[in-house]
Amino acid sequence: MTIPEITFSQVFDFVGTLAFAISGIRLASAKKFDLFGAYVIGVTTAIGGGTMRDLMLDLTPFWMTNPFYLVCSALALLWVIAFRKLLVRQNNTWFIFDTMGLAMFTVTGIEKTLTATTAAGTHFPFWVAILMGTITGAGGGVLRDVFINEEPLIFRKEIYALACVVGGIAYYLCYQAGMSLIMCGIICGIVVVVTRLLAVKYRLRLPIIKGEE
Amino acid sequence: MTIPEITFSQVFDFVGTLAFAISGIRLASAKKFDLFGAYVIGVTTAIGGGTMRDLMLDLTPFWMTNPFYLVCSALALLWVIAFRKLLVRQNNTWFIFDTMGLAMFTVTGIEKTLTATTAAGTHFPFWVAILMGTITGAGGGVLRDVFINEEPLIFRKEIYALACVVGGIAYYLCYQAGMSLIMCGIICGIVVVVTRLLAVKYRLRLPIIKGEE
Amino acid sequence: MTIPEITFSQVFDFVGTLAFAISGIRLASAKKFDLFGAYVIGVTTAIGGGTMRDLMLDLTPFWMTNPFYLVCSALALLWVIAFRKLLVRQNNTWFIFDTMGLAMFTVTGIEKTLTATTAAGTHFPFWVAILMGTITGAGGGVLRDVFINEEPLIFRKEIYALACVVGGIAYYLCYQAGMSLIMCGIICGIVVVVTRLLAVKYRLRLPIIKGEE
Repeated sequence: MTIPEITFSQVFDFVGTLAFAISGIRLASAKKFDLFGAYVIGVTTAIGGGTMRDLMLDLTPFWMTNPFYLVCSALALLWVIAFRKLLVRQNNTWFIFDTMGLAMFTVTGIEKTLTATTAAGTHFPFWVAILMGTITGAGGGVLRDVFINEEPLIFRKEIYALACVVGGIAYYLCYQAGMSLIMCGIICGIVVVVTRLLAVKYRLRLPIIKGEE
Repeated sequence: MTIPEITFSQVFDFVGTLAFAISGIRLASAKKFDLFGAYVIGVTTAIGGGTMRDLMLDLTPFWMTNPFYLVCSALALLWVIAFRKLLVRQNNTWFIFDTMGLAMFTVTGIEKTLTATTAAGTHFPFWVAILMGTITGAGGGVLRDVFINEEPLIFRKEIYALACVVGGIAYYLCYQAGMSLIMCGIICGIVVVVTRLLAVKYRLRLPIIKGEE
Repeated sequence: MTIPEITFSQVFDFVGTLAFAISGIRLASAKKFDLFGAYVIGVTTAIGGGTMRDLMLDLTPFWMTNPFYLVCSALALLWVIAFRKLLVRQNNTWFIFDTMGLAMFTVTGIEKTLTATTAAGTHFPFWVAILMGTITGAGGGVLRDVFINEEPLIFRKEIYALACVVGGIAYYLCYQAGMSLIMCGIICGIVVVVTRLLAVKYRLRLPIIKGEE
């Protein structure tokens, strides 16, 4: 009876990867990159966070054992080429998909960390899992911005990575309360989505840090 | 009787590393970096792609067990200092060497991936090898551009990384046809070189991706 | 009787992490990043070099098994917020702390490399240890500059990373002379500090590399 759960995850993984890749490809197109460059930026956005996580957890990067993610990024490239005039009108849809991806990637990052072990064979503390969830969700966007030579957007715009942190804390609380991992994951994902939606609706931003005069 | 083959590889490795490092050092000099900065950029260009590959394959980065690559980058620095007025006239030579390096690095990346294994102990699918060949060949240039704070050149200029992909596909076809690994490598390298030469001669570029208006 | 030595290391580790994080947070504040962005830049500056080292040595990144470093970076953020008007007046203090951190991180990088092994089970040559000491000390600043989208400062300003190299060579000489590891580390650290202080006092810079006209 795990089939529905797997399928559910896969749908989120698919729309999330698509949405992340499309966000990268759109920025690449604004920079007049060629098709290859656009694809690389799309892939980087989609898999960059998870790759950083897997390298730090000493795991094989997830996309190297499953062609799904690179194929999905290729679909994103085709989508941008085919529907570029409609992309602005699809903004709300892609925002929803991006948010679903953010939630899914956060949960995946937490779950992978909880089952991973250090070189010494011990498990990681829970705060590492929350951090890895956040890196999985928000790291790809940072790498994307580094590659297109822009200041990372998430360091300035409305709350984004923080939604992953809040979701991660929700996961931890559910976990401590003895809920099943599936329930922890679902609640974490919902918290990420709700936090992100509220942040955008009410234009919530963190205060800007004031420097010396 | 493997000595000629090894020597052959080493010559390509040497001229490729030199050419990659020189390309980095020249860009660093245009940015008024100091000698240390120029050396770091040269090294990054020469070993960056292979380092990314080795980290993702969970191997010890190749240059950490053999001082050849750092010495070679130091020679490149001396070369630029000694012959800076002649560098422009040497452009064609360095272009050839750079292309030889691109071919060599692609083959090395493919070969290392084919003998590597995932954390689960299985071999990687062949498309990962082609990708790792491409990252080995073109990744150093991307890191170089990130460090000098420029948009990565290969996302916009004539075909470069794609030559690695085409060479990788040639390797795969030869491999499927039952050829020896040495033959696969030689043909792959030739295909990379020819693709790159044709791309430059006929100024072949990929189309630029069109963004929304 | 090893307690004093450990405590000593920890003090250096603490002030170094604080100083590195504060240098990142100050640059982030100049870029009008929000609190989250500033924290990420602070953390990156403080732990970036050691993380690169640990990934290349195939070790679990040091901060993933000890919350000290992230807590310390949070303290740095609070410090900048609380004392931002005094930061300029504290410049000399933070310069000293930064230099202590540079020395400590260099020694840590060398020591970790000397006890690490390659995938083949052999030890690394000593020049790799010197390099890893340098990356531990100077790598975080490079990552910081990449994230805030500036040309890495250490490629142009007065001698910084080179102080780590000089300290590393001092470590090597002491090591060859048969001194205890603790003595090697202390002398290495002193050499790093003295080199850096002299470099700043006499404004020592490496020559800028001259490019082709």
